[in-house]
Order: sequence, then structure tokens, then C-alpha cells
Amino acid sequence: MTTRSNAERLLMWLQDAYAMEQEAATMLTAMAGRIEHYPELKSRIEQHVTETKQQSERLRACIEQLGGSTPAVRTAMADLMAAFHAAGNSLMSDEVAKGLGVSYAFEHMEIASYRSLILAAREAGRVDVAEVCEAILLEEVAMADWLAEHQDAVIVRFLQREATEGVTAKH
Amino acid sequence: MTTRSNAERLLMWLQDAYAMEQEAATMLTAMAGRIEHYPELKSRIEQHVTETKQQSERLRACIEQLGGSTPAVRTAMADLMAAFHAAGNSLMSDEVAKGLGVSYAFEHMEIASYRSLILAAREAGRVDVAEVCEAILLEEVAMADWLAEHQDAVIVRFLQREATEGVTAKH
Repeated sequence: MTTRSNAERLLMWLQDAYAMEQEAATMLTAMAGRIEHYPELKSRIEQHVTETKQQSERLRACIEQLGGSTPAVRTAMADLMAAFHAAGNSLMSDEVAKGLGVSYAFEHMEIASYRSLILAAREAGRVDVAEVCEAILLEEVAMADWLAEHQDAVIVRFLQREATEGVTAKH
Repeated sequence: MTTRSNAERLLMWLQDAYAMEQEAATMLTAMAGRIEHYPELKSRIEQHVTETKQQSERLRACIEQLGGSTPAVRTAMADLMAAFHAAGNSLMSDEVAKGLGVSYAFEHMEIASYRSLILAAREAGRVDVAEVCEAILLEEVAMADWLAEHQDAVIVRFLQREATEGVTAKH
């Protein structure tokens, strides 16, 4: 039952978000690098890697304004991210399909995180931080929407390639 | 470049989905059991546990109709699920907030999986299986929507409780 001020919680969640974006950049870079036969997906992920790195810098600025420092990845969060990472990178025969599902899930964890951050920033009276998080949230929602809109095309292409002799389907 | 028929892929994805729902039931049961101060969330998760168990049975019937058997959880999928599970169950001071984010993410991995399954079932000419997956998809979307709609209330309550002397916020 430790009491914690909203400002303290805000700083902790910003540090979590920073770690989350660091790991997202690693995961998405690896994923984009392996895709060969789904060029639209590859290109959208690469664009999101660029956004993700800018988000990290915006979060770092907020953390420093609140008197904190950017963290090493926390253990519990790191375990979850590493598993996401492994799932995206794995040797599964349906790598592109699983990667798409994992990325879509990951975007929604980010969406939930930024929605919580916006509330925490407002409760702590930090409108400036809330605005940064609102801007990042829009980018995460746009990425999630893109994945939702393009999933069917990717999956149909995967199924067709997998059933065709002599072509690679998985990435 | 192994060629695989759409019927074979459909069976593999049904088996993945079965494993996913088994793990979801475990994770959600543990999560609901720990929640004390967020009764609406607890009750909605309990309702979804019931749905999840019924979904497993519907998937098992589809798998058996296709001549397959229900699997032990696959390794890659199991690693991911175990990490989700650990994140939901952890000793984090913001357990309810992280659990909400992880559940929201998990629902979207399920949504992506059932969308892929519906396409695979249609490509394999199994309208009956597509219909089962469409029914399950609606339940997953309803759960995801509920979480999105109730997140702000849970988070504001969490932030208020955490800043208040003598009350527990985390679950």
C-alpha cells in the first residue's frame, strides 16, 4: 500500500514507455529486414521504425523535464518484450502471419499505455506531457489501423504462395 | 519452400488458436482472481473466461472434423503466452494497469488470428469452420471494445487510489 503521487507514477510510466519503444524499434527493424515478398508491409514497418525512434526521443525529453533519467529496460517489461521479439523473429513457417498478429497486438499494448499516460499526465497537471503522449498515440493508432486494413491482403498472398510450388511464403 | 495446402494450414492455425485459448483461460482466470478493487473489470474478465472455454470446445470440434488432434501448446506460441501470463501475474505495483494493457494486446492477437483463420477456412472451402471463427471473432472484438471503453475509468481509479493513504491500488 505504498502511496505514490501522480507525478511519480507519470515518471514511471514514461520510463516504461521509453523501454517499450526501444524494444519496438529493435523488433520492427528485425522484422522488416526479414520480409522479402510483402513489400508494402515491409515499407510501412520501416516508416514506423523511424516514428518509433522519434517517439523515444520525445519521451526522453519528457522524462528529463520531470527530473528522471532514461532507464535500462525493466525486468518484467523486458521479459514480455523479449518474448514478443522472439515470436516475431522465430523460425515459424508462417512467420509473416505471426509477425503481423504480434505487431498488431504490440500496437494495442502501446495504445493502452499512451492512453494511461495521458490520464496520468493530466492528473499530475502536466499538460505538456499529455500533448506529447497524444501525438504519439495518434501514430500508434495509425499503425494499428494500417495493419488491420492490410492484413487480409497479406494473408491471402501468404496462403496462395504457400500452396504454390517453388515460391517462399513465410517472409 | 515447403508447399502446404490451404487445408493443412487451416488445421495448423486451428491448433494454434486452441493453444492460444487454453493459455488465455489460464491467464484470465489468474487475473480475475487477483482483482479486488475493480469489480466491473473482474466481472467482465470472468464472463470472458466462460466464453474462452466454450471457444476452445468449438475449436476442438473443428480440429477433429478436419482429422486433427488438439495439441500440446507449441513451443514458440507457448513462450509468448507464458510471457503474457507472467506480465499479467507479476508483482508490479501497477498490476491492474499492466494487466489491462496486456489483455487488450492479447485480444488483438486473437482478433488477428481469427481473421486469418476465416480466410484460410474460405480458401480451403470450409465454410462451416469459417462460420465458427466468425462467431468467435465477434466475442473477441466485444471483449476488446469493452476494455477500450472501460480503460479510462479503471486508470483514473487506479491513480486516485495510489495517491491515497491507506488503500490498495494495484489490484
